[in-house]
Amino acid sequence: MKRKIQIGVMGSGADLKYSSEVESLAFELGQQIAKSGNITVYGAEKDYDSLSTAASRGAKQEGGPTVGITYGTSKKIWDKDSNTDVIVVTGLERGGGREFVLVNSCDVIIAISGGSGTLTEIAISYQLDIPVVALVGFGGWTDKLAGTFIDSRNRLKILPAKTPTEAVNVAIKMGKINNEK
Amino acid sequence: MKRKIQIGVMGSGADLKYSSEVESLAFELGQQIAKSGNITVYGAEKDYDSLSTAASRGAKQEGGPTVGITYGTSKKIWDKDSNTDVIVVTGLERGGGREFVLVNSCDVIIAISGGSGTLTEIAISYQLDIPVVALVGFGGWTDKLAGTFIDSRNRLKILPAKTPTEAVNVAIKMGKINNEK
Amino acid sequence: MKRKIQIGVMGSGADLKYSSEVESLAFELGQQIAKSGNITVYGAEKDYDSLSTAASRGAKQEGGPTVGITYGTSKKIWDKDSNTDVIVVTGLERGGGREFVLVNSCDVIIAISGGSGTLTEIAISYQLDIPVVALVGFGGWTDKLAGTFIDSRNRLKILPAKTPTEAVNVAIKMGKINNEK
Amino acid sequence: MKRKIQIGVMGSGADLKYSSEVESLAFELGQQIAKSGNITVYGAEKDYDSLSTAASRGAKQEGGPTVGITYGTSKKIWDKDSNTDVIVVTGLERGGGREFVLVNSCDVIIAISGGSGTLTEIAISYQLDIPVVALVGFGGWTDKLAGTFIDSRNRLKILPAKTPTEAVNVAIKMGKINNEK
Repeated sequence: MKRKIQIGVMGSGADLKYSSEVESLAFELGQQIAKSGNITVYGAEKDYDSLSTAASRGAKQEGGPTVGITYGTSKKIWDKDSNTDVIVVTGLERGGGREFVLVNSCDVIIAISGGSGTLTEIAISYQLDIPVVALVGFGGWTDKLAGTFIDSRNRLKILPAKTPTEAVNVAIKMGKINNEK
Repeated sequence: MKRKIQIGVMGSGADLKYSSEVESLAFELGQQIAKSGNITVYGAEKDYDSLSTAASRGAKQEGGPTVGITYGTSKKIWDKDSNTDVIVVTGLERGGGREFVLVNSCDVIIAISGGSGTLTEIAISYQLDIPVVALVGFGGWTDKLAGTFIDSRNRLKILPAKTPTEAVNVAIKMGKINNEK
Repeated sequence: MKRKIQIGVMGSGADLKYSSEVESLAFELGQQIAKSGNITVYGAEKDYDSLSTAASRGAKQEGGPTVGITYGTSKKIWDKDSNTDVIVVTGLERGGGREFVLVNSCDVIIAISGGSGTLTEIAISYQLDIPVVALVGFGGWTDKLAGTFIDSRNRLKILPAKTPTEAVNVAIKMGKINNEK
Repeated sequence: MKRKIQIGVMGSGADLKYSSEVESLAFELGQQIAKSGNITVYGAEKDYDSLSTAASRGAKQEGGPTVGITYGTSKKIWDKDSNTDVIVVTGLERGGGREFVLVNSCDVIIAISGGSGTLTEIAISYQLDIPVVALVGFGGWTDKLAGTFIDSRNRLKILPAKTPTEAVNVAIKMGKINNEK
């Protein structure tokens, strides 16, 4: 393996009003990624919190590396506790553009809950042949798409996982393949 | 109204093996857009045909203007009959990036059938507050999402239409609002 | 020839305080492109005028087609007289990103005067093997680079021209090669 | 200071046939950045070596963190000794697009020698108000632009430095300002 595996965590933005339980699970995803010695990649927002940002906090609490991928040109992100080791400023707008660079930079992604942004990220991931692990049980597009192929091209199936530990284990296994290509 | 309305037609790529009936309807969408005096915007591929490209052929048959939005750096596109008036070369890869510029450049989009690419385009459109008209009855992500809000933010509902004429009429009405902003 | 030739006009923004003489020449470039039956592609700003926008006004006065390529997600551009037939919204920020899509979408570009933005556009054009015609005599990066190869790779030389008519004639000749590839 | 300073090293590609002396200096830039405890950001190519890649090797030899920013969708880069800690895949083509994300993600850049690519990066940096340090004495666009303002807007002057140590010291000082914004 050349690099540490880059695992993206994608999920609802705070405006979707997720529960503190779901936030804890996203945080735990980051913790598990950090414990495995790999990199948490997340979509850094500028105006509010998100499950993706919660994962970066979890990763940092365990001392793991984090990469935040943001939109626009400013490096000022929603990162009150300075949990971001590397900031990537895409110069692309949010809503599909920034998300394209975000997903494209991951060896694998883990999705949890999620609205239109997470849906976009899962659909991009499928198109780029980047595996998607779905932490199921918390609604949103993650639950709707878990276990499916997205379309009749039957490329990579969205892989369901029931716990953060299982999700990260599957992500590492799938991401390693991509990483070693 | 400042400009002609820019109406994007999005749908399956030829690798999804759509029927000639669906292709005819996409062609008819382009014809109707042309007859209304507006612009057909489509995603220009380099390797195969698509419903989006079929719409550009329909538009051109009626003498309407067409704009093809492609990926990479080359201007060589799948356009055997030279139906493209303006070619935009985004320098972004296919699978989310090119699609972001494509959707972002439309006042409104019409979707028909469609796999992961069309799903990405609809999800981007929703995020950018660009209205989506769904020509229903032909499966794919268009049928799955017609009449829904995509997520609990309840922004713009995907508007179902039953015929190309209805789809274009609704698109013009919705696109005009965006165009006059 | 498949399409009309897409000729980009690049030059100083209004914050560089160009003279009315230079603005007239940019306007004339657009007029000449329109008279030749080709398309004027320009970088549409949202906050102020530019030589590029002046060219679009010239093109429109002669009834020629214009394509404005802008940044961000809004279609509201600096276009008081509605001279833009097609608006492309790149979702990329200004200062290099939008400029990349702008140049990449041209068969050839004509530069006049210009600061850092025009410099970026000329350098991108050189890298993409898109010919650059320099309307010389009005300072800026256009004059500095006219007749040079930019670097020792000696790809396409920046072609000097002394009048708008000469610039457009050379641009058509060079753009046709690209257009027919 | 929130993050480690992200210092981009930009310079000629191997097709410009730079001397081993210049390559050593680029390598030393990476070493100095690593010794200062900061991050080396570089433009990862897929087909050949570059001064930017040489800097990543230097950084890694000293155990410093490296971020490679590449084009297209593949993560396979010119990185024979696995010197890249984080790979960012922009989905934008080389020649201006990838470079936009690269520069935009730096707190400051150091340039050395360089052809059209480095020129593009310096011009983008100027437009984005990201400081540029020029390691002078080795020709190319770096030497031509050192000490100048690029245009009459007189934003940030390109700061000349005579040694890698001086260049990195100035870069840290300038990058810190950006980092703490």
